Amino acid sequence: MEIQVLHQVMDWNEDVSDAVKQTLAGQHICMINVMGSPGAGKTSLITALIQRLKANFRVGVIEGDIAGQVDAERIAALGVPTVQLNTDGACHIEAMSIQKILPALPLDRLDVIFVENIGNLVCPAEFRIGESLRMTLLSIPEGDDKVEKYPLMFTDTDCLVLNKYDMLPYFDFDEARVCANYEAVNPSAPLFRVSSRTGDGIDALADFLSGHIARAAR
Amino acid sequence: MEIQVLHQVMDWNEDVSDAVKQTLAGQHICMINVMGSPGAGKTSLITALIQRLKANFRVGVIEGDIAGQVDAERIAALGVPTVQLNTDGACHIEAMSIQKILPALPLDRLDVIFVENIGNLVCPAEFRIGESLRMTLLSIPEGDDKVEKYPLMFTDTDCLVLNKYDMLPYFDFDEARVCANYEAVNPSAPLFRVSSRTGDGIDALADFLSGHIARAAR
Repeated sequence: MEIQVLHQVMDWNEDVSDAVKQTLAGQHICMINVMGSPGAGKTSLITALIQRLKANFRVGVIEGDIAGQVDAERIAALGVPTVQLNTDGACHIEAMSIQKILPALPLDRLDVIFVENIGNLVCPAEFRIGESLRMTLLSIPEGDDKVEKYPLMFTDTDCLVLNKYDMLPYFDFDEARVCANYEAVNPSAPLFRVSSRTGDGIDALADFLSGHIARAAR
Repeated sequence: MEIQVLHQVMDWNEDVSDAVKQTLAGQHICMINVMGSPGAGKTSLITALIQRLKANFRVGVIEGDIAGQVDAERIAALGVPTVQLNTDGACHIEAMSIQKILPALPLDRLDVIFVENIGNLVCPAEFRIGESLRMTLLSIPEGDDKVEKYPLMFTDTDCLVLNKYDMLPYFDFDEARVCANYEAVNPSAPLFRVSSRTGDGIDALADFLSGHIARAAR
């Protein structure tokens, strides 16, 4: 009789993440995992990026929320395929949820999928979801001590977006401190200064993402 | 032979929370569990409250952080007994951690302990830590959709603090929406409009807390 070996939850999540990654690679789709605190401006940034990217790429969105669908409604209003993923209390998205929900998107007609993770600077960083790229947001009003206090989220990302950058004059935010802390834990990943409201910095970020999307499409 | 019954983690946390509560009741100490997003302003608010409360009460602080001790250093500079609780990656504080760390505080010389929980709008709400009172912070820059998107944090609190209230003119924040959502899920708990920076609203909140601390002291 064969003995069934149960993986630990974290290992199992990694396995499913690899399977999702393979599915997406087969479809030449780039999946971007968007993470940050509640209110860091994830939905607004995704909205601004879609407006820049949609001329060249076919975009889809998975909107993660604990409850409700206010964000999914905002995104769907842009006319891009959007599915709502409610975690029903869970503080992060796991790869299995992505695997289950992918068939709800028209994968054969997409180049990039944005996944808006749950607003949380901790747990989402621990769970790969099959993404090609991780994008962490830190908004100016959150303060300049976040890289020190929530290290994994900044160590394990492919780029950092300083969002609500137009709010810098109104807050006591030491930008040099954030840059130094970020470079110390993640020296090779770029940093973008962005305001989704004014549009400043969105082009540079969209160019960076376009490079990744184009590579996945090959 | 007696069979050992293992509780589930959540039940076990509740048991330890009850034990902590009993210990604190025996010492006539009020413990306040301070929760909110990263950057909502928990440390600054605790600092402002200590300055108001210390004339009448003996205050201690447990500073929860995933890593580091920047906040504990800020609080200790006020001359109040402070202990740092590092969760080493965990996204919330559990009752067992509080039980273990309590002996590091001079309990026989305290009336109130503030516990600054990990910056997170999700998981801390699920874990009681033996607190007498829960205080949830929502800062204006985080946006007006948070009660809908993170319901448990607002349902299971004894008061809501709208922090960074002086920033209202700079953000597109629909206060009536937040108030209506909060009242719908938590009709009896009060709401305070506060700016730790200007000091506006701190007195009213300190008065509310003073009532609870005085009751615990009886």
